[in-house]
Amino acid sequence: MKGIFITLEGPDGSGKSTISNLIGDYFAKLGIDYVITREPGGTQIGEKIREIIVDNENKAMGAETEALLFAASRAQHVHEKILPSLEEGKIVICDRFLFSSLAYQGVGRGLGIDRVKMINEFGLKGVKPDLIIFFDCDPKLTILRKTKNGGDRLELLGSEFHEKVYEGYKEIIKKYPENVEIVDARKPKREVYEEVIKLIDSLLKKKEVFQ
Amino acid sequence: MKGIFITLEGPDGSGKSTISNLIGDYFAKLGIDYVITREPGGTQIGEKIREIIVDNENKAMGAETEALLFAASRAQHVHEKILPSLEEGKIVICDRFLFSSLAYQGVGRGLGIDRVKMINEFGLKGVKPDLIIFFDCDPKLTILRKTKNGGDRLELLGSEFHEKVYEGYKEIIKKYPENVEIVDARKPKREVYEEVIKLIDSLLKKKEVFQ
Repeated sequence: MKGIFITLEGPDGSGKSTISNLIGDYFAKLGIDYVITREPGGTQIGEKIREIIVDNENKAMGAETEALLFAASRAQHVHEKILPSLEEGKIVICDRFLFSSLAYQGVGRGLGIDRVKMINEFGLKGVKPDLIIFFDCDPKLTILRKTKNGGDRLELLGSEFHEKVYEGYKEIIKKYPENVEIVDARKPKREVYEEVIKLIDSLLKKKEVFQ
Repeated sequence: MKGIFITLEGPDGSGKSTISNLIGDYFAKLGIDYVITREPGGTQIGEKIREIIVDNENKAMGAETEALLFAASRAQHVHEKILPSLEEGKIVICDRFLFSSLAYQGVGRGLGIDRVKMINEFGLKGVKPDLIIFFDCDPKLTILRKTKNGGDRLELLGSEFHEKVYEGYKEIIKKYPENVEIVDARKPKREVYEEVIKLIDSLLKKKEVFQ
């Protein structure tokens, strides 16, 4: 694996997607070969799986089913996009990855962090992030803002669930701190962006992409 | 769990579906409360997952993705239909279950029997068949018959794959012989049916459904 794999993690509405697009602009200016992608989805098959996961019609979905569908979507993402891009030497930025499942399904749904990790690792082909950036912000306000005009099956789960997920993230980071960096996502967007770029620059120097 | 859980396993075209309908007729005549179901599918969410699995458009699907989707469909089946029916004391007949994934994905796709068993057990909530009937027949001829007018993504994999699956089934039965009964599915349908009914009758007597 010659490329570099960076994942963005954090509660809904913590600003990951906006920042990931800005990172793309930054790489484009530097002429660095990069891929920006997101989960669930990221591939055609993954998008089809995502549709089943978020569809408000699928209220009968069991927690285990949900966790396995996320793992399936991720397996396809690794197989079809992430691993091939890394093998081509690209920098891959992924909005949500393994930690999201550990937090949402492992803790939020109460399935257990280790059990959810196990079904995911089945499909990861050994791929591990070189850097996990956690966007730290209490979801209380952000989730209200996101769902005031409706939302998908997961967004509509209520603030108690999203609080649990947030606490879950903190537990997971404590348990698996390797390559994790925490950014205070309540700060103004510009400051968050600058902090994120600093973390990425430092990784690229370490990996000798920069001199 | 007060009900009885019976699964039918075997290669494509071994006659499982026909026989499962006949078992239903038999239970109906006896006034026994039963459910007949099949995998992949068996629930509305499971059918949506099944569509993704068998769609010939999804040629880019990785083996791990396929295995996780089967496990997701099965988890939903257990959650929404199999476990609730068993808790109501019903007899549940399921056309394909865990052994199919062990044979098709574990051996056919080469993912390993134990790894595939692990991701499936994540969603089984401890449900185990009281009787697994294996329909023993070499798939060489049956699969040709099934695919001469086309077939789905899995049926079209070719005879080498289906031979591997058949050998896989035999390996799995050797490894996990508990509650397995083998029926010679090359015999005429009437004889196969009678053998299957004999096995079921004997189980129902043991479980004191019959006096």
